[in-house]
Amino acid sequence: MSKPLILVSNDDGIEAKGVHALIDRLVKFGDVVCVCPDGPQSGQSMAITVNSPLRINRLDDYHGAKMYSVNGTPVDCVKIAMHCIVERKPDLMVSGINHGSNAAVNVVYSGTMGAALEACACKVSAIGFSLTTHDPDADFSGCLPFVDKIVGDVLENGLREGVCLNVNIPYCQPAPTEMRFTKAARGKWTDEYKVYLDPNGNPFYWLTGRFVNDEPDNRDTDEWLLAHGIVSVVPTALDRTALVE
Amino acid sequence: MSKPLILVSNDDGIEAKGVHALIDRLVKFGDVVCVCPDGPQSGQSMAITVNSPLRINRLDDYHGAKMYSVNGTPVDCVKIAMHCIVERKPDLMVSGINHGSNAAVNVVYSGTMGAALEACACKVSAIGFSLTTHDPDADFSGCLPFVDKIVGDVLENGLREGVCLNVNIPYCQPAPTEMRFTKAARGKWTDEYKVYLDPNGNPFYWLTGRFVNDEPDNRDTDEWLLAHGIVSVVPTALDRTALVE
Repeated sequence: MSKPLILVSNDDGIEAKGVHALIDRLVKFGDVVCVCPDGPQSGQSMAITVNSPLRINRLDDYHGAKMYSVNGTPVDCVKIAMHCIVERKPDLMVSGINHGSNAAVNVVYSGTMGAALEACACKVSAIGFSLTTHDPDADFSGCLPFVDKIVGDVLENGLREGVCLNVNIPYCQPAPTEMRFTKAARGKWTDEYKVYLDPNGNPFYWLTGRFVNDEPDNRDTDEWLLAHGIVSVVPTALDRTALVE
Repeated sequence: MSKPLILVSNDDGIEAKGVHALIDRLVKFGDVVCVCPDGPQSGQSMAITVNSPLRINRLDDYHGAKMYSVNGTPVDCVKIAMHCIVERKPDLMVSGINHGSNAAVNVVYSGTMGAALEACACKVSAIGFSLTTHDPDADFSGCLPFVDKIVGDVLENGLREGVCLNVNIPYCQPAPTEMRFTKAARGKWTDEYKVYLDPNGNPFYWLTGRFVNDEPDNRDTDEWLLAHGIVSVVPTALDRTALVE
């Protein structure tokens, strides 16, 4: 039997530490093809490039994984990988490990989860992993037991069609030992722009802000789990149709 | 009592015909503030601009509406409007009228619906309208009775928090007379890239493709309704948590 084919992408770009930490772990599960943006693409959600051409750049292999970069978004990477790079349908798509949380409403803006959701659209089981620090030199070792456990489970059992997993791992000491399925906390971003004046006195605006959790005491939310050192796993749907209550 | 405040955006840019057709209709319902991208932003989903500054450009009023353009995505437009332009929380946000369908899986890539979903994130009732033709000079008159009906209803009754409406209007003769609530059809895009060779013989790739409907005979889908000349209204959720079945 041939080894599983695992497609990897991210939104921090092909040079990010997180994707290398992920590949180090995935190569023992199967053949890895990694197709990442050629630079940072955080906050790209499920954006696609419709009005300009894409290039595929083949790079040196990394620990046995085939490595490519694309001058597009995370979703572009998955689409072009599926259509123009991999020779058969992947058994699994894994996105990340993201530098920064994709819990709560952040999932909808996340390029990491955009890539995973695009794999859903291609009917490939998908998992997005995120570590709750933006430090580019973060220590990803606390993630790795959870990568092993979840990747192993999904390769064995698959996922419901149209649903991927949004896994957030708290960056804490001691490293997390527990994980739970849960749902995205309700909340919103506030104070979102810092205003500057350019040398001519004209204003410009830069996105910033802070997340306000609407339900900080709800133990059945990703934010609560992460605040308590527990890995959160949120089943995340491609289809946005709101069921009628 | 003050008039309702209606925030408008789109993804085709401030010069698109569709947003002007929409404003023409909305000014009779309330005070309209329109904040659109300064150029086309189709396929931008819920992308946000995190690594570069934004500018707000005040334009001449249009039929009594205050008009602004922003050098960002549709979601950027809604965020910056909420934080830096409108003086009170809008009673309603309306996105579109998009030049092209946002039915089925297209909703997840749509900048038009990205803007509406961002309004959801800001806890503002929101509606996205799309006409099923990409013709920049399309005749939007068939949309207008449905804009009137749905905008009037939502201003009166509001929407469930976290849910907006994805309204697709078939471009057909005779103009549609019926609309129904429904769900997004399942399906996927295929044959997605056209491959070219540049003058140096190196390949580049351009997104294209066609949508394949997985359930063409299912009458309870947006694609079926649109194919039969009926306006589709899909309640669309911000939260992507997949309920456990």
